[in-house]
Amino acid sequence: MAATLADRLAAYAAVAAQLGVDAIALVPGPNFTRAVDHAFMSHERPFLLVIPASGPAAALVPNLELGSWDLVGFDGAVFDWRDQDGYDAAFAALTQHLNIRSLAVEGQVMRVFVHHALLRAQPDLTITDAEREISALRMIKTPADLAALQEAIDISERALTRTLDSVRLGQTEKQIEQTLVQMLFAEGADDLSFAPIVAAGDGSARPHAKARSDYHVKAGDALLIDFGARKHGFCADITRTVFLDHVTEEGRAVYDAVLQANLAGLAVTRAGVSAHDIDDAVISVLEATPYADRIRTKTGHGLGREVHEAPYIMRGNPMVLPAGTVYTNEPGLYQIGNFGVRIEDDVLVTDDGYKTLTHFTKELTVLKC
Amino acid sequence: MAATLADRLAAYAAVAAQLGVDAIALVPGPNFTRAVDHAFMSHERPFLLVIPASGPAAALVPNLELGSWDLVGFDGAVFDWRDQDGYDAAFAALTQHLNIRSLAVEGQVMRVFVHHALLRAQPDLTITDAEREISALRMIKTPADLAALQEAIDISERALTRTLDSVRLGQTEKQIEQTLVQMLFAEGADDLSFAPIVAAGDGSARPHAKARSDYHVKAGDALLIDFGARKHGFCADITRTVFLDHVTEEGRAVYDAVLQANLAGLAVTRAGVSAHDIDDAVISVLEATPYADRIRTKTGHGLGREVHEAPYIMRGNPMVLPAGTVYTNEPGLYQIGNFGVRIEDDVLVTDDGYKTLTHFTKELTVLKC
Repeated sequence: MAATLADRLAAYAAVAAQLGVDAIALVPGPNFTRAVDHAFMSHERPFLLVIPASGPAAALVPNLELGSWDLVGFDGAVFDWRDQDGYDAAFAALTQHLNIRSLAVEGQVMRVFVHHALLRAQPDLTITDAEREISALRMIKTPADLAALQEAIDISERALTRTLDSVRLGQTEKQIEQTLVQMLFAEGADDLSFAPIVAAGDGSARPHAKARSDYHVKAGDALLIDFGARKHGFCADITRTVFLDHVTEEGRAVYDAVLQANLAGLAVTRAGVSAHDIDDAVISVLEATPYADRIRTKTGHGLGREVHEAPYIMRGNPMVLPAGTVYTNEPGLYQIGNFGVRIEDDVLVTDDGYKTLTHFTKELTVLKC
Repeated sequence: MAATLADRLAAYAAVAAQLGVDAIALVPGPNFTRAVDHAFMSHERPFLLVIPASGPAAALVPNLELGSWDLVGFDGAVFDWRDQDGYDAAFAALTQHLNIRSLAVEGQVMRVFVHHALLRAQPDLTITDAEREISALRMIKTPADLAALQEAIDISERALTRTLDSVRLGQTEKQIEQTLVQMLFAEGADDLSFAPIVAAGDGSARPHAKARSDYHVKAGDALLIDFGARKHGFCADITRTVFLDHVTEEGRAVYDAVLQANLAGLAVTRAGVSAHDIDDAVISVLEATPYADRIRTKTGHGLGREVHEAPYIMRGNPMVLPAGTVYTNEPGLYQIGNFGVRIEDDVLVTDDGYKTLTHFTKELTVLKC
């Protein structure tokens, strides 16, 4: 991250200029946190940082946040509003102060009520979605970013080891999930990256399954665990699939297909490769197996302050990955009603290849439990 | 919650009819979860449930979620899309199928990229923000909702007891926060309602302070802890402020003012009172003290599947609270650079008054630690 607030704001101003818009607006979320180096909540209260292509930035701040906002060291204009007064007057004052015609926003973060408040304040304002360009500033990780991410991953892997050690046949998915969550915090997580997925048997065939309280894991089940710790604002995201007690021939073959796909993705990874090329390498391996009809997802996504962020690793995405990008390599095969397998690494793109930040074994594991 | 999916969808259809719009759209979040009785993630993938005022509902579903979506038992039309194809074609097919002119959305949940995708598919679609009316269906809690909420609160209070028992002078805010989080999961939390606030000394004067790694709690500090467990999808939200080792006369006076305000809010609570009236009762007490310039927040907010939801308990909000509403009564006084006090109860509105769901003592507590 650039050393000073002014430097970081200047980078967003440069994006505005490059997009040909008058300003960029950030709302609480990963870009906002990166820009001001402090995390804020939003909930029902609009909170907005507007960075013009040229000239000083301005902010719309809920009054109760002013004490926290002081810590940011922001020297632009601040328009605050109190709950009892509502926020429309502050939006009107902000837009009048800014005197802009066009505004680029984070379409995946800003919610409709803020969009509507902006248009009530200035009906002729042109609002465009520049999620990709704004969030691209987060794509190349700094050494500090990588240290935080590695810490999140190390915590996660220690928690996974302890969780798998404790799995016993007859436990419910929910019990295993609760163990995992406790282990994550015991190992030092600040938060969860997302609600963990702990899915066994037919549940493993649903890529975003929820842990069930009424499903007891049994011999022969695939057990898919997809989870991560958040540490210092950065998110780990790891999946491993193990088999309980024994594995069928089909299980072994599917597992091997997914592992080969994961390895094929790693093999083509280096700075300058496109998101399309990585996904194509991964999916081509899966397509060449007898399980092509079980492909349901792209290879993965960028990882950082958000658990899903650019670049999205899929065919058709021409985005070139620079050194310093971190993405998830998470091929899977899923047959509804039967089982699924996913293997997910967190991968740093380097000039001469890649470095996997995840180190948990990917060898087929049969838990005797 | 109504017993069947059809009943629950009919309730949203009735809201559409009452608003005079052709349909309501829900995106993953608390209303969506309530409507389909399953929780889904959204991240970068649009996921939409559209319920017309009359006629069958339709859904736009990411292909990889179809396996989970099957569990919902939805019998309307489903337009799925795969990552590699993008979602614009699915939006076009959905809007053509629906043949509507106006759509009410959850302005605090739907993000701009979905709003823009809808308008790309149907440029003449009128989209209005009906957050309040849509979310109002969640306001009256069912017995099952209340049981889940009480469980979340009980977990939180047990965790608070254990955390306060472990506080020692010289610990950092961050250490205390980590203890709290571990205790929450050890006591059975499914998740955190939100990132806890653990703030001592001058930090307690920032209503949404972040725990600091470099602030060591010391004798005389106010220690404000605002946190909650999430259980079965419902969020606890509790604040207690204690003093460490000793309390000054100012601390005692400020604490008493906040406690009297909290009690004044309870005293006027019963079914039929307005959000305005409760806040007015609370704030009037604070305004009559020498600390009126330390008022920075409204009384509170509704509580349920979201930690902040309707009704917002503030002057000027005429919304009448029916029996079954749960709100937070959380007056506070905050002097930047000095200290802050907040006391927060979770309160169920009943026909003849109220029931506090929080039971942790509100007597001024001086921790000998």
